[in-house]
Amino acid sequence: MTLKALIDGSRTAIEADPAKAAAVFAVSGRLVGTTEVAIRAGRHELTVDEPAALAGTDLGANPVEHALIALASCQAITYRFWAAQLGIELDSVEVAAEGDLDVRGFFGFDDTIRPGFTSVRLKVTPSGPEPAERYQQLADAVDEHCPVLDLFSHPTPIERTVVTA
Amino acid sequence: MTLKALIDGSRTAIEADPAKAAAVFAVSGRLVGTTEVAIRAGRHELTVDEPAALAGTDLGANPVEHALIALASCQAITYRFWAAQLGIELDSVEVAAEGDLDVRGFFGFDDTIRPGFTSVRLKVTPSGPEPAERYQQLADAVDEHCPVLDLFSHPTPIERTVVTA
Repeated sequence: MTLKALIDGSRTAIEADPAKAAAVFAVSGRLVGTTEVAIRAGRHELTVDEPAALAGTDLGANPVEHALIALASCQAITYRFWAAQLGIELDSVEVAAEGDLDVRGFFGFDDTIRPGFTSVRLKVTPSGPEPAERYQQLADAVDEHCPVLDLFSHPTPIERTVVTA
Repeated sequence: MTLKALIDGSRTAIEADPAKAAAVFAVSGRLVGTTEVAIRAGRHELTVDEPAALAGTDLGANPVEHALIALASCQAITYRFWAAQLGIELDSVEVAAEGDLDVRGFFGFDDTIRPGFTSVRLKVTPSGPEPAERYQQLADAVDEHCPVLDLFSHPTPIERTVVTA
């Protein structure tokens, strides 16, 4: 099945039953070392850790790197889907993401500094046989519809529960 | 070196030279299949993919799952650091994160629906020998200082560059 057929099929199915549009994603994990975290998402297991400068043993990418992995991969995949929607031929997409962090926020040395990224740079290189304007048009459609770019750009409501004995 | 000693050492070093507080994290990747993305973060390489329902082959967690992995692991590690800062004994931390997505936003079937998570539920279970109030106090400190919780909760400035031939 082509991607366009999958998208059209989803549209038909969701128009018939809007409840089919709802998806829930879930992960769970636990701290298994000083900073080592064992995480499961579906059938996938992975290790998140910090580098030595943050007391870890660098057994995996760290949490903020996973946030950038989410952003970069979401961009690449959203290019793929929207190229299919817009009928734009796309041979490849390269993505690089960088984020600046001021660790004074995380450590609480200065509570006027946010703990998260203060800025992020994203560089996307789509390529294929079409004129450059078509890939710019694609980029604009992607940025309107990329789930993780939306997460970075807008607040998401979080309901937090802390369970203590 | 204990975690407390690492934190105190960081404080001293950053007070002497505030430029030491600046950290840059970077990842890069490319689309290598229909939805398969090969990503590198430091020395770590991983595969991000979509499940079959989203045209992928489920070779790895998908982008929004990576965003939840970032959140869950950041919470766990921030519990570890802030327990050390506050002198709270912490034996373990379990974390579960769930996010709701309405795929009509991503597909552009309804542009009044945001493409990202419409809501996220986070459940954290810290445990150890101290009274429950101490872990609640820890949870409050964590939520003020967790980089990825901050990313989910507040907009982050993104500078995007699209490179076309």
